[in-house]
Amino acid sequence: MDDLAAQMLALSRESRAAARVMNTLSTETKNKALGYMTEALIRDQKAIEAANAEDLAKGREKGLAGPMLDRLKLDARTIERLAESLKQVASLPDPVGQEISRSTRPNGLVLRKVRVPLGSILIIYESRPNVTVEAASLCFKSGNACILRGGSESINTNRALAKTLRASLVRAEVAAAAITVVETTDRAALNALLKMEGLIDLVIPRGGESLIRMVAENSRIPTIKHYKGVCHVYVDEQADLDLAKSITLNSKLQRVSVCNAAETLLVHRAVAGRFLPDMAKVLLENTCEIRVCPETRRILTAAGISGEQVKDADAATYDNEYLDRIISVKVVDSLEAAADHIEKHGSRHTETIVTTNPQHGTLFQSIVDSACVFVNASTRLNDGFEFGLGAEIGISTDKLHARGPMGLEELTTYKWLGDGSGQLRN
Amino acid sequence: MDDLAAQMLALSRESRAAARVMNTLSTETKNKALGYMTEALIRDQKAIEAANAEDLAKGREKGLAGPMLDRLKLDARTIERLAESLKQVASLPDPVGQEISRSTRPNGLVLRKVRVPLGSILIIYESRPNVTVEAASLCFKSGNACILRGGSESINTNRALAKTLRASLVRAEVAAAAITVVETTDRAALNALLKMEGLIDLVIPRGGESLIRMVAENSRIPTIKHYKGVCHVYVDEQADLDLAKSITLNSKLQRVSVCNAAETLLVHRAVAGRFLPDMAKVLLENTCEIRVCPETRRILTAAGISGEQVKDADAATYDNEYLDRIISVKVVDSLEAAADHIEKHGSRHTETIVTTNPQHGTLFQSIVDSACVFVNASTRLNDGFEFGLGAEIGISTDKLHARGPMGLEELTTYKWLGDGSGQLRN
Repeated sequence: MDDLAAQMLALSRESRAAARVMNTLSTETKNKALGYMTEALIRDQKAIEAANAEDLAKGREKGLAGPMLDRLKLDARTIERLAESLKQVASLPDPVGQEISRSTRPNGLVLRKVRVPLGSILIIYESRPNVTVEAASLCFKSGNACILRGGSESINTNRALAKTLRASLVRAEVAAAAITVVETTDRAALNALLKMEGLIDLVIPRGGESLIRMVAENSRIPTIKHYKGVCHVYVDEQADLDLAKSITLNSKLQRVSVCNAAETLLVHRAVAGRFLPDMAKVLLENTCEIRVCPETRRILTAAGISGEQVKDADAATYDNEYLDRIISVKVVDSLEAAADHIEKHGSRHTETIVTTNPQHGTLFQSIVDSACVFVNASTRLNDGFEFGLGAEIGISTDKLHARGPMGLEELTTYKWLGDGSGQLRN
Repeated sequence: MDDLAAQMLALSRESRAAARVMNTLSTETKNKALGYMTEALIRDQKAIEAANAEDLAKGREKGLAGPMLDRLKLDARTIERLAESLKQVASLPDPVGQEISRSTRPNGLVLRKVRVPLGSILIIYESRPNVTVEAASLCFKSGNACILRGGSESINTNRALAKTLRASLVRAEVAAAAITVVETTDRAALNALLKMEGLIDLVIPRGGESLIRMVAENSRIPTIKHYKGVCHVYVDEQADLDLAKSITLNSKLQRVSVCNAAETLLVHRAVAGRFLPDMAKVLLENTCEIRVCPETRRILTAAGISGEQVKDADAATYDNEYLDRIISVKVVDSLEAAADHIEKHGSRHTETIVTTNPQHGTLFQSIVDSACVFVNASTRLNDGFEFGLGAEIGISTDKLHARGPMGLEELTTYKWLGDGSGQLRN
C-alpha cells in the first residue's frame, strides 16, 4: 500500500471510530457543538475569506468560467447565511433514537425497531464550498461521522472551513474526526476511499453524471445517487390551460440549473392546438428555446410561430437534461402514451400532470414510476424544504432506502433491539 | 450483442413491463392468483416430482454430496408445505398503497408518502428449489415482478415450478412475465442480467459469500445482501449463568447451518472461571468443537477439560462463520472490549448479551452496530417469522433500505404524491 492509500485507511478508521462514539451522543451535545460552529464561522470569517480569495485567484489563473467562480465565492453575506443554516439544523428534531415500532412477541420478547445513525458517510462534491458546511452539519445532527471530499478548485476554502468546524467539535468535547475534510484532491485518494467497505457505510456523490457513474462503478460501498433529472409536465386532455401555462413556466424557468426543473412538455392531442401556440409564445418571450415534434411544428407554423429558437427534435432530444433555457415539446395521444414516454425517456425523478379530472390525476400518479408525482403543481416543489423536511442533502432517484428529498431521517437507518428473559428458538 | 444477451434483454423488458402492470393490481387479484398457484402445485405434483427426479439423478451422477441432494429433493410432503406457504402469503396484509405519511404544506399542497412496489427484482439463489416458490410468492404479493435464477442442479425442477406458477397467473389474467424463471444456467446469462440497470430495479443474491461478492462486483443495480453471519453471545460480568448456558446452546446448536447461528462466545473475565468449565462440558457432550483463547485454555485445563475437540484459536479463528458444530471462545475484560471485538470480527448481523443488569443490556444494544441486538435471548430469534413479519426473503446486513429480516414491506419502496391546485415555487 502506498502512502496515500495508507493515509486514507487511517482517516477512514478514525472516521469509523468517531462514528461509534457519535452513536451515543445526546441531542444536547450535538446542538451545543452546532452552536459553537455557528459562532466560529462568524469569528473566523476573515480567515475563511482569505482562503477563499486564494481559491478564486487560482481559479481565475486557470481560466474558470464566470458562473464557476460565482459558485466558488464565499463572502461575508454567504458566510452569515451558512451560520444561519447551522442554527436551523440545530433546531430540527433529532431523528436518532426514535422508536419506529414496538411489539411484544408471543414468547414475551419485547422487540423494538429504533432509528440509529448510518455510521461514516463519504460525500463527494464539486465546486460549491457551502456544501462543506451544509453536509457536515446534516451528517453531524443525524449522528453520523462524515468524510468530505470537495473539488480541487475549493480546496483552500474547504480546509479553512474544516479547521473552523473541527475546532468547534473539540470545544464541545466531541472527536474531531466526526468531520473530516480530505486534504488532498489527488484522484488516487478518492479511489482509495471508495474501497473502504466496512469502514465507510455510505457514499453520497453530488455532482455531474460522470462523477456519479464513476463512483457507482468503482465502489462496492452502498451509494445514494441521482443520475439526472429529466422531469416532465404533462397537459391532460381535460386541463385548465392557464394553469398549465403557469406550471410549465415555473417548472421550466423558475431556476433552470437544478435537477427538479422540467425538461420536457407533453401535451394531449385534444388540447395541443389550443394550448401550444400561446405556450410557445410565452416561452420564447422568456428566451426559452423549444425543440418540437412534427405535430407541434405543424401547430406552431399554422399559428405563425417560427424562428431560430424553435428547433426540430431528433432521436436524442427527449433524453436531454438541459439544465438550461431549452425545453423539449411533444404531442401525445393519451395519458397512457405520456406515461410510456416518461417510462422510456424519464429519469424517475419528478413529473406533474395538469388536469381538471381527479381520476386522471390518480391514474397518472399510479402508473408513473417516479420519486415524486404531482397533480397541478410545479416540478420545482420536489424539495426537502418544500416537503417540510427542514433540510436536504440531495434528491435520490434510487428506489432503495431514500427516494426523493433526503433530510435528516434519510441519513439514518434502524436496528432491531430485542429484550428477553431467556427466549430460545424452538 | 449475442443471442443470449439479447434473450436476457427481452426477458428483462418483459419483466419490467409486467412490473408496471403489477403496480396497479388489486390485493384481491393478487390473492386470487396465489390461490390458483396453491391449487396448481397440488394438481401438478406428479410432474414436479418427475422433473425433480431428473435433477436428483443428474446430481447423483455428478456425485453431489448427500446434504446437497437432500436440499434439492421435493417430495409430496414438501410440495404440500409449499402450497401451504402460498396460502399464508395470501393471508398476509398487502403493503402496497399504504400511506406512510400525509401532510398539507403551507401552500396548500397535499403531500402523501405512499408505499409502492420496487419493480422488477432479480433473485439469484443456489440449490434449494423451494426458494423458487417462496421468493416468487413474496415478490408477487408485494406487487413486484421477479426474475428467478436458480442453481444448475435444480434447473428441471425450477422449470416445472415456473410452468405451474405461470399457468396460474394466466388463469388469474395477470401477465405471465410477472414471474420469470431463467431457463438457462449459463453464467453469461447471469452476467447479462446484472447489467440490466433501469430494467431490473433490485438484485437479491441468496447464497454463499462468493456468489454475493460476484454480484456486488459485477452489477450497478442496487443489491440487498448479507455477506455472512458471524454472530456473538456475550456473557456479562453480571449474568445468570444457567441462562447464559441455555442461550449459548440454542444460539450455537439449535440449527448450525444458518446465518443467525452464533459462531463466537465472549465471556467476561469475572465469570469465566465459574462459567466456562460447565459450558465447555455441555458443548463437548453435544459434539461441538471449541476453539479457545489462552485464558480459556488455562481455565479448562485447570478444570481437567481437554481433548481433541478443544483447539487453540489462531489469528483467523474469530472471523470464522463455521455453519457447523464448532464455536470460538474468548475471555474479555469488559463489555466495551466485547463490543470492540464484535466491531472488529463481527459481520453486523446478530449479537446477544446475557446480563442481569439492565443498564449493561442497554449499553450493549447502544454501542454494538448490528442489525439485531438482543438482551437475554437467542441469536436464532432474528428471523422474519419470529419478528411477526409473516415471511422472510432473507436477512440483510446492509444498512440501507432493509436491515435484518426482510418481509413483504421490505420488498417495497415509496413514492411522494403531491396534489395541488396550481402551486408554484417562489
